Amino acid sequence: MRLTIACTLTPSGHPGGAIGMAVFGVALWKYTMRYAPHSPYWFNRDRFILSNGHTCLFQYANLYLSGYKAMTWEQLLSYHSERLDSLCPGHPKIEHEGIELTTGPLGQGIANAVGLAIATKHLAATFNRPGFEVVNNQTWCSIGDVYLQDSNNLTVIYDNNQITCDGSVDLTNTEDVNKKMGACGWEVIDVIDGVNDVEGIVAALEKGRDPKRTKPLFINVRSIIGVGSAVAGQVVSHGAPLGKDNVAAIKKAHGWDTEKVFHIPDKVKKFYGDIPARGEKHVREWNDLLPRYTEEHPDLSATFKHRMAGKLPSNWASLIPSSFPSDPTPSCKSNNTVIAKILAECPTFIVGTADLTPSVNLTWPNSETFNPPSLTPISGNKGSYKGRYLHYGIREHAMEAIANGLAPFSLRTTIPITSTFFIFYLPAAPAVRIRALQKLHVIHVATHDSIGAGEDGPTHQPVELAALYRAMPNLEYMRPGDSEEVAGAWTPAINHTHHTTGPSIISVSRHAIPQLPGLACCAAVARGAYVLHDGADAAVTLIAAGAELGFPLAVARYLPERHNLAARVVSFPCHKLFREQPLSYQREVLRRHEDIPAVVIEPYVCLGWERYNYRYFGFTEESMAGRIIGFVGEFGEGKVRRGEFVEL
Amino acid sequence: MRLTIACTLTPSGHPGGAIGMAVFGVALWKYTMRYAPHSPYWFNRDRFILSNGHTCLFQYANLYLSGYKAMTWEQLLSYHSERLDSLCPGHPKIEHEGIELTTGPLGQGIANAVGLAIATKHLAATFNRPGFEVVNNQTWCSIGDVYLQDSNNLTVIYDNNQITCDGSVDLTNTEDVNKKMGACGWEVIDVIDGVNDVEGIVAALEKGRDPKRTKPLFINVRSIIGVGSAVAGQVVSHGAPLGKDNVAAIKKAHGWDTEKVFHIPDKVKKFYGDIPARGEKHVREWNDLLPRYTEEHPDLSATFKHRMAGKLPSNWASLIPSSFPSDPTPSCKSNNTVIAKILAECPTFIVGTADLTPSVNLTWPNSETFNPPSLTPISGNKGSYKGRYLHYGIREHAMEAIANGLAPFSLRTTIPITSTFFIFYLPAAPAVRIRALQKLHVIHVATHDSIGAGEDGPTHQPVELAALYRAMPNLEYMRPGDSEEVAGAWTPAINHTHHTTGPSIISVSRHAIPQLPGLACCAAVARGAYVLHDGADAAVTLIAAGAELGFPLAVARYLPERHNLAARVVSFPCHKLFREQPLSYQREVLRRHEDIPAVVIEPYVCLGWERYNYRYFGFTEESMAGRIIGFVGEFGEGKVRRGEFVEL
Repeated sequence: MRLTIACTLTPSGHPGGAIGMAVFGVALWKYTMRYAPHSPYWFNRDRFILSNGHTCLFQYANLYLSGYKAMTWEQLLSYHSERLDSLCPGHPKIEHEGIELTTGPLGQGIANAVGLAIATKHLAATFNRPGFEVVNNQTWCSIGDVYLQDSNNLTVIYDNNQITCDGSVDLTNTEDVNKKMGACGWEVIDVIDGVNDVEGIVAALEKGRDPKRTKPLFINVRSIIGVGSAVAGQVVSHGAPLGKDNVAAIKKAHGWDTEKVFHIPDKVKKFYGDIPARGEKHVREWNDLLPRYTEEHPDLSATFKHRMAGKLPSNWASLIPSSFPSDPTPSCKSNNTVIAKILAECPTFIVGTADLTPSVNLTWPNSETFNPPSLTPISGNKGSYKGRYLHYGIREHAMEAIANGLAPFSLRTTIPITSTFFIFYLPAAPAVRIRALQKLHVIHVATHDSIGAGEDGPTHQPVELAALYRAMPNLEYMRPGDSEEVAGAWTPAINHTHHTTGPSIISVSRHAIPQLPGLACCAAVARGAYVLHDGADAAVTLIAAGAELGFPLAVARYLPERHNLAARVVSFPCHKLFREQPLSYQREVLRRHEDIPAVVIEPYVCLGWERYNYRYFGFTEESMAGRIIGFVGEFGEGKVRRGEFVEL
Repeated sequence: MRLTIACTLTPSGHPGGAIGMAVFGVALWKYTMRYAPHSPYWFNRDRFILSNGHTCLFQYANLYLSGYKAMTWEQLLSYHSERLDSLCPGHPKIEHEGIELTTGPLGQGIANAVGLAIATKHLAATFNRPGFEVVNNQTWCSIGDVYLQDSNNLTVIYDNNQITCDGSVDLTNTEDVNKKMGACGWEVIDVIDGVNDVEGIVAALEKGRDPKRTKPLFINVRSIIGVGSAVAGQVVSHGAPLGKDNVAAIKKAHGWDTEKVFHIPDKVKKFYGDIPARGEKHVREWNDLLPRYTEEHPDLSATFKHRMAGKLPSNWASLIPSSFPSDPTPSCKSNNTVIAKILAECPTFIVGTADLTPSVNLTWPNSETFNPPSLTPISGNKGSYKGRYLHYGIREHAMEAIANGLAPFSLRTTIPITSTFFIFYLPAAPAVRIRALQKLHVIHVATHDSIGAGEDGPTHQPVELAALYRAMPNLEYMRPGDSEEVAGAWTPAINHTHHTTGPSIISVSRHAIPQLPGLACCAAVARGAYVLHDGADAAVTLIAAGAELGFPLAVARYLPERHNLAARVVSFPCHKLFREQPLSYQREVLRRHEDIPAVVIEPYVCLGWERYNYRYFGFTEESMAGRIIGFVGEFGEGKVRRGEFVEL
């Protein structure tokens, strides 16, 4: 049975791969996966991730045939069109029923699947009890050529068609993939006839569900791109329409009516017809299990239901200290003071770092490592699946893509917190970006913010990254300026919910920075910017954030004493939150209506600050004061025009 | 013989790895590598890349001991300090003799080494003749735990100490690295005693130089981090000072005077003392070969010397067409029209793409693929080492990191051009960033610019990437608006030289855009922005770039006809080039001195445009005109203040 849908009508798309994978579609949606098309968000459903997202026609057709109600015939025909209401764009999107995560950028989906599998392992270890497997779903992931960690609930199906855009895979890759996956700790099963052997694929997939296995499973399916067409196995069937004649030839070979287009034979409909009812049976059985689970394990069941509802302990905000030491403190350390109790007492948070545990300071007393209980590392950090501290290794991109699997397992049941140096959020950026597109609830703690990481040199100084993350839609990039503001940053970060806001980056310093008790305001951080120090006679507004917040305060003391010039000071932790404030508030903070100039003090590339006015570099009070005086003078004389941008 | 330098004096740094690797230092610098400390930029030198850049103390000490003149004793003592003139920062930098490339961000150095090895293979295939091996240098690369392509002139030394920041490597990675590397096509040699077995390492390294081998070589050296100290093999010896007692213990074990600090015993100096003279002998032998090569192969030798001097054919600029078809054309296609002759006739350019050859349109007639001649891919694209078209595979980050090895082989001898969709310059960004830091001469052709890639959805729409690349220091991000401007973008891109400018991105559209003959100006692109259409009575300046350049021209025709409002139009292909113009030119282009407002039309996140004024979204002439009229009115009434930024 082959899929030949829509391939001739769209000007682009990826028909060949979708056709080549048709057999796994039958094996997965008809025979193997436990899911319920009429209850698409059933908590314990098997999750499927299409890591090779460009072959999504394959998934759309199976969603339609299995009975997902939103996936109508008209929707299916909208594949790869520019229709804004299409559920079938060129890559699958999280907003649509039956799609767990938006995929497309290659290399991420497999890590998303790892994240989903970790969520299952963790929740199962936390909530399952003998006879009560309330969480036991499987994660299935299909990948294409090009791709290629430890969990027996993860099965990867490799669509091994040996064709990419440029030619055969051996043009760029001659590795022995089975040996490589074996060396990486996977169990490998080969399916030689990936065109017809549905039974072989189903048997391999069923092995994926076998709880006696100890390794993740890699199924290498030798498929043929564009199978059945005259261009089968050829590059041209990858990313271009097959053409009328080819589609007709495929239909003929399957005994279908070659004149009928966009037609699904009755026998195919019948073949898939039993799936919705079977799905509802899975849901019913699970629903029946819950009351018995509640009876036997009332406390655990209450917690489980609380977690499934996406709720945090109602007292979480009170776990943040209300006062902090006044000595200069690295905001990285402040961050631990702010969050350690929440991490310890709110089991929703799954915390992890890319091999920087000693530096990023995100552990808490008695925190437990997430790892297979069978593993005893040489360095002794033995873990369990109940653990909530994940050692991701030096894999920043994989860390974030895994977190993208942890976050959407089910609404706020697990909220990942990740952490590394701010500069390493550049390699991680593709996964952070797709998370922001999906508004997934992930909190990032970026340390070694600013240029304080001096002796590591420019490779570690993230001067242009603030511009990237201030420009990234749906993401709140926050630079808190002392412990009080760090506490203030966590409130919007934790209050986010899926599909309403999005991820946050809390960017903190490695070096000690002054504390501003009585000045800095925890609650004001959520407004993006606020006045830290005011004065009716001020001739200039000084703006700063994060590790530099002490600078404008120091210079604002120095200027009246030495130069008889009064300055206002604005703390500006988050551009996005400030842009969301009413214009009246924005003008009040910036005092643009009185036409006094503003100076922004930030050691990053200035891109993005222009709208608030000017920028400055060089951080001694005297040099800052000198330049500010010069600038205010030029502004008064009209040499620098109102609203004109100057880099000093 | 161990390195115990400076480990107690710096507040940070990575002593343990440097000590653990001491034995390879002896094997490489004393016994194996062909190099000349007194002629550090000798063309045919072996190249060494320290991919695990944080262990650079290891490299600095060997540069000192081998006799590099710039690496003085005082410099060595400046390790990991914040001294601005230090040659010994926390990660190695390209500016310093004996360092081929800046390394630090993990995972890139090994690809840099692949690039250097490709450069050798290509130049050797092009210029060597029987008996005249004018290019036969080796590439050596050391990597740390965590890491892990086809070339018999590349040897990777794996510093397998099994320790990372968070603990032992098995905490996060239990792969069988030898099997994995074998499966990936590498020859693997194990050195069990990586602490003392210099002879074993030298024998393995010498195998790296054996021309009879067909695979790249992976030497797995079982080293001990911080060996000899009480914290040997422990996490604490990774990134923290060893402390006085530990250093003394190591000295004692080697029979050194424990009281002397920063002291190199005479026997060590003597051991390394013959290296500069040996190096000069290598240089002399090669210098003697050149006249004989010139006699036997005069034409080839002339080309070789021309290439070594970093020269392009003197007529290169005349190879760009001076006129273009006037029909709407995708600028991706314009790009091929502009550059195909240069690619065909200037052998300096090594062109490649990450599996998007059919889409990015960067081939030329009779272009040859770079690949081992022994490889015959199924799809038939047989190559040779003389080929200049590189199929990188779907490996954007590796592509750019490999290009970072190709570029600095020797000044402009090889200039890489890479290409992929603009959105995929996000995964590639860490390698582009470190290239920009080093001002390496690489030209990127980013296709599918703008939001024209509609049906692929937001995962393929690079709305925030322009902000990142406009913020990245040393890089020219250019959006040319028609064929004429594409030609104009290539001139600054090709005229770049190492250490004076840096890389460029030429961002081109997939969809057809209007051609502007008589308006667009090739030569003006190098100024960053210029007036495309002027008018003394204009009430507004419309700014656009790239695929949207037709919009302001269309609306500037529509506004006077329908709304009696005259508009100026500015083409703005490159922020960086415009910022480098005199302020008088900038004001002339923007006409800020006459205080008429400006509207920027770009479908990207507006961050970075604020300094030039305002921004607009929604691209029909009528809707654009309506919003511009409304905005000019508000500006006239003072509702929008001068210099105030508004998103419409």
